[in-house]
Amino acid sequence: MKNSKAKGIHYLIDLYGCDEGQINNSEELKDILRLSLKDTEAVVLREYFYRFSPKGVTGFLLLSASHISIHTWPEKSHLTLDVFTCISKDETKKIVEKILKSLKYKKKNVTSYERGFLLEGKGDF
Amino acid sequence: MKNSKAKGIHYLIDLYGCDEGQINNSEELKDILRLSLKDTEAVVLREYFYRFSPKGVTGFLLLSASHISIHTWPEKSHLTLDVFTCISKDETKKIVEKILKSLKYKKKNVTSYERGFLLEGKGDF
Repeated sequence: MKNSKAKGIHYLIDLYGCDEGQINNSEELKDILRLSLKDTEAVVLREYFYRFSPKGVTGFLLLSASHISIHTWPEKSHLTLDVFTCISKDETKKIVEKILKSLKYKKKNVTSYERGFLLEGKGDF
Repeated sequence: MKNSKAKGIHYLIDLYGCDEGQINNSEELKDILRLSLKDTEAVVLREYFYRFSPKGVTGFLLLSASHISIHTWPEKSHLTLDVFTCISKDETKKIVEKILKSLKYKKKNVTSYERGFLLEGKGDF
């Protein structure tokens, strides 16, 4: 497989007041993340989810030169989510919106960060 | 294994003018990331590295409720690196410094971002 382009957008999302049952359910979280990529250009290279004892889930989808990661603390009703892709900005925004629509929470903190932009037309630092 | 604490620091690092050979070498990158965690509290749950054809590496170390990721574009002498941990800030800074010391590059863009901090003493949003 060929590498994707060296320019991407990275969403850092922290959710509070999450549903304890939902964010302790690794299968449900895996489905939510997988489904968010349906009909997009993103290719999943590998995925792995780990369920802590007694509570908590951590997982990632490694995409073509980018990733989605999720780490949850059900006892604090809290999760962190990263969506970093090198596909179009609009498509990435839709992925984030789909995930947020599927998760139950009370408060969110969303930051987006452009990466690789310095490279535009500058191959030779 | 028990989940780590719900408060962390996330470094987003973009490097430019990297050594093309080094950032196309998945074994060397894996060793650099693994070694950076030596003598720290960070526990690696799973790791995965993928080598693109003809060039490029993408990899992930899933830590106890946090992660390190690396995505490289040798043809652009560019890489992105994320170091997100829930161990102490000092220890995290040392991990980042160790990795940067081991990589050859000309220009860096480093941002750090605190996550989960809203939770301090506020379990009930």
